[in-house]
Amino acid sequence: MASQQALTELAKRRGFFFGANEAYGGTAGFYTFGPEGAALKRNVEAAWREQFTLRLGNEEIEAPTVMPEPVFEASGHLDGFDDMLIECAECGESHRADHLIEDAVADIEDAEALGVDRVEELIREHDLACPTCGADLAGEPVEDFNLMFETSIGPGSGQPGYLRPETAQGIFVEFPRLKEYARGQLPFGITQIGPAYRNEISPRRGIIRVREFTQAELEQFIDPEEDEPPLEAVEDVEVTLYPVSEQHADDGEYIETTIGEAVDDAIITSPWVAYFLGVAQGWYERVGVDMDRFRFRQHLSGERAHYAADCWDAESEIGGNWIEIAGFAYRGDYDLTKHGEHSEDRFTVFKRYDEPKTVERATVDPDMAALGPEFGGAAGDVADALQELAESDPDAFDGDEVTVETDGESYTVDTEVANFSVEEQTENGEHITPHVVEPSFGVGRTVYTLLEHAYSEDEVDDETRTYLSLAPEIAPTDVAVFPLISNDDALIDVASDLADELRAAGISVSYDDSGSIGRRYRRQDEVGTPFCVTVDQDGLEGDDETTVTLRERDSAAQLRLPVAELAAELEAVFDGDREFADLQDRYERVDTDVTTD
Amino acid sequence: MASQQALTELAKRRGFFFGANEAYGGTAGFYTFGPEGAALKRNVEAAWREQFTLRLGNEEIEAPTVMPEPVFEASGHLDGFDDMLIECAECGESHRADHLIEDAVADIEDAEALGVDRVEELIREHDLACPTCGADLAGEPVEDFNLMFETSIGPGSGQPGYLRPETAQGIFVEFPRLKEYARGQLPFGITQIGPAYRNEISPRRGIIRVREFTQAELEQFIDPEEDEPPLEAVEDVEVTLYPVSEQHADDGEYIETTIGEAVDDAIITSPWVAYFLGVAQGWYERVGVDMDRFRFRQHLSGERAHYAADCWDAESEIGGNWIEIAGFAYRGDYDLTKHGEHSEDRFTVFKRYDEPKTVERATVDPDMAALGPEFGGAAGDVADALQELAESDPDAFDGDEVTVETDGESYTVDTEVANFSVEEQTENGEHITPHVVEPSFGVGRTVYTLLEHAYSEDEVDDETRTYLSLAPEIAPTDVAVFPLISNDDALIDVASDLADELRAAGISVSYDDSGSIGRRYRRQDEVGTPFCVTVDQDGLEGDDETTVTLRERDSAAQLRLPVAELAAELEAVFDGDREFADLQDRYERVDTDVTTD
Repeated sequence: MASQQALTELAKRRGFFFGANEAYGGTAGFYTFGPEGAALKRNVEAAWREQFTLRLGNEEIEAPTVMPEPVFEASGHLDGFDDMLIECAECGESHRADHLIEDAVADIEDAEALGVDRVEELIREHDLACPTCGADLAGEPVEDFNLMFETSIGPGSGQPGYLRPETAQGIFVEFPRLKEYARGQLPFGITQIGPAYRNEISPRRGIIRVREFTQAELEQFIDPEEDEPPLEAVEDVEVTLYPVSEQHADDGEYIETTIGEAVDDAIITSPWVAYFLGVAQGWYERVGVDMDRFRFRQHLSGERAHYAADCWDAESEIGGNWIEIAGFAYRGDYDLTKHGEHSEDRFTVFKRYDEPKTVERATVDPDMAALGPEFGGAAGDVADALQELAESDPDAFDGDEVTVETDGESYTVDTEVANFSVEEQTENGEHITPHVVEPSFGVGRTVYTLLEHAYSEDEVDDETRTYLSLAPEIAPTDVAVFPLISNDDALIDVASDLADELRAAGISVSYDDSGSIGRRYRRQDEVGTPFCVTVDQDGLEGDDETTVTLRERDSAAQLRLPVAELAAELEAVFDGDREFADLQDRYERVDTDVTTD
Repeated sequence: MASQQALTELAKRRGFFFGANEAYGGTAGFYTFGPEGAALKRNVEAAWREQFTLRLGNEEIEAPTVMPEPVFEASGHLDGFDDMLIECAECGESHRADHLIEDAVADIEDAEALGVDRVEELIREHDLACPTCGADLAGEPVEDFNLMFETSIGPGSGQPGYLRPETAQGIFVEFPRLKEYARGQLPFGITQIGPAYRNEISPRRGIIRVREFTQAELEQFIDPEEDEPPLEAVEDVEVTLYPVSEQHADDGEYIETTIGEAVDDAIITSPWVAYFLGVAQGWYERVGVDMDRFRFRQHLSGERAHYAADCWDAESEIGGNWIEIAGFAYRGDYDLTKHGEHSEDRFTVFKRYDEPKTVERATVDPDMAALGPEFGGAAGDVADALQELAESDPDAFDGDEVTVETDGESYTVDTEVANFSVEEQTENGEHITPHVVEPSFGVGRTVYTLLEHAYSEDEVDDETRTYLSLAPEIAPTDVAVFPLISNDDALIDVASDLADELRAAGISVSYDDSGSIGRRYRRQDEVGTPFCVTVDQDGLEGDDETTVTLRERDSAAQLRLPVAELAAELEAVFDGDREFADLQDRYERVDTDVTTD
């Protein structure tokens, strides 16, 4: 297991990631992915796309990162996407007020749920001091700080805009068009991978809590009355669950079960959420998360957004702490209903009945010649109010008179003038608001988890070796090719040609002829390259006898292979058709130690 | 050729792109890529990466989109990244003042170069009116409007930050670390693909001038004295050039030449820029730009950034207009020098001499026991000033006394006290600031060009057919598979299995069993799918005789193929090993018209 410091140092030195703008003193909460990290991240995104877009039959879109204010009025982010801020009057430093309480008071775990006033009180009661300068914080105001980055679209005062706090909103706002591409048929799923932003009060824990990050989200739109997930595909998948009940229990334990049983036992209440947990479990295993350091934890009621019926996080263990790397929420019709209310468009689908239905519909046909003279300008509104009343309470038209309210005024109308009747109508279907199930993945946190779980050390020839045991699908480079001696032109030619040949076979190759062979192995070990191929004098034969050395990363085992067979063997290993162990059975093992020359 | 309206309508209807947030009235300058467009865009990015990162041996990074203010103080964007703004006092609409002049005054093509005051005058002189409401604009102030989106990082007043106006800055600021990954060796190239932002005053021309867009940039760092591009790789590439001289000539013409000749004839002055034009020419052709509607145009001196020695744009013809789709600039040492001056870090590389050099270095070793009592607190500064003088003007120490200035005061020192001498020193190398050559591609504009150039109409069986003749590498989907009849379970099974088989061969497949076969062909034609495969009763034989219909998009030609050979034939076509024409020679042509049933 890596210390966070060792991993961060390796990440910087080898080009995985590092704090951005360090030449300018750094910018807290922003990281740059170097060449190795960017490749690793792209591989994670490609693997996610392969599973959550292609295999599940969904469609991916790409929406802008800047969105206008009305979107976030509707989504609730403008009002509710806040953290508790306290500023030190002495040094000017900003802090998360709820975190100060949680750090200082033993039995408070979720101070945010207590509200601003209570947190302000608690800071006074416990005489809390500024962690930066030590000044007294009692008496400083605690306020809600909105975490969206604000900007202005267009010149002058412009139009307020925000960097999206989640990629999801770019999907929700385009639902009216996206449903057309799905030909109005539920269920369908839309995915998006891209940047999202959160203007953290005080970013910490390195790359875990950052201000700009990449999300991979799937919004699955379903008819809650009809659509069932294909649960049979994942019912036998084994998972480690940490439900609310166990979190509340004194001796709470993880529940080791299967997706199918968890649904049967009502541990997971939404079959759709259960389905995606099952798919995710397989995906995390595939990309190389250590599944002994992985769990699904159910949100406590205080953590859950008010609209979410059920919510589970995928969590990975990092240096003894559990961090959220994905969330799986049943969001109901909240998002589409809100956008339908706030915008001019319809966020519903038309659900056709199997057979047309005949329904009774109460209706009015007011005599406007009577209403007009009586109510003047309000006559139209009164007519509308009568129609609404007819639909909501037809019995109101039983008497001689009926009273409606509009714009705060009461109007009494003769029932006869209202012209109430009940008509039979044929309906072919109805407009329904789909429900949303959302698996939402943090790409950067997944990358960090993979690095942490892959970080390994062992002893090779009395030297401590560091290597990243990354899954071949995810490793930045598949194979490194070296000429044994750096300044031998014949070796360099053969090795370069071999590198090109492997590239032509679709393998990603790094060619390296600088430094000792031991240094080159160490470099590739530290960036997680699964295989190294070294060309020495025996690689110059130019006939069937020509052989090269193939070294596997985790075992550091070296085999001698005919160069003519190399590309095919490696392709088979990368396609999953063959294991390195099979090669060990068939080829001669080399014990010559070239790792430390 | 597509009318812009027809293409925009198709783009929206088929899910290539559409204006974002239309449910909220739309947000000018922001577009969303729908499923087909996002796939097309990803394919363009992958093809760019394959050429400009992998094949050229460069490394790709991913930096944040939000960057702090000091970066843009250094880069010059804070001061100079402006457009001319005029606001109508009557209706409040904002306009590009320079565009108003260019539209109204026949012989002015680049009003921005005239400056704010002159443009204000011209608006008065020509009595220009607001294009929106017709109100008089004379007398309204013209001002420089900075085009960066501003935001605030962190709580409270925070730290000013900006959405990056180009991905390049994320590479430049990290140069001190990136050079380490390159082991301090020039030349090396760093690429980045990602969002960039430009808060346009009045976005227009649909997806061409937008506020959020994707750039693909390569920053090639070179030693200007040593590094030559591998020009021989592209010297025979034929290009259409439109140099400054021809743009100024009355009957200016394009120059049809090769990259090699253009360098020999000094039409392109930088061999590095010429090299990248040659690489780009091949790439544009590969992804499907119509090279008869493509040119490289040299920047006029007024357009060029002051630091750029030479700059060429790749331009494509869209609806009769030429639009910039990439820029190729020799930026010299401008960027790295500026960041070196504004930051705490070193933006240089150490260039080792072939052999150590012995140089004479003038130095002082002042007698502080004499300087101290004489100058008190200023003694240290006087000593530093003496050293500086020794380096800049050693002859100043020829006399008995020497005078230096520091903090505005003059100090005279005995030459003996200064202890001047000239020493021989051995130097192994020097710190040099690399020059930058930058190919910068607009991904969205490339996508739009590909759609425009691919847009085709023809007559098939007396019906006008619209299809996108996209290159197979770029098309969102490779192959569509249909059962001939939508409700035949046996056909559906065979077709679904065939779709899976093709997917397993690495082909991207769309399966469709909804609507008539003619509708399904039209749908695939309109999203540019190169091949459709239809399974009919002959597909149910289950032996070697089993055949399916393969339809090619552009010719609408249909062939009858044994299903067992289909995957291999298609793979060969997609790998470029075979043409559809070869298949036409070998398989029976079907004339049955199924396109319009």
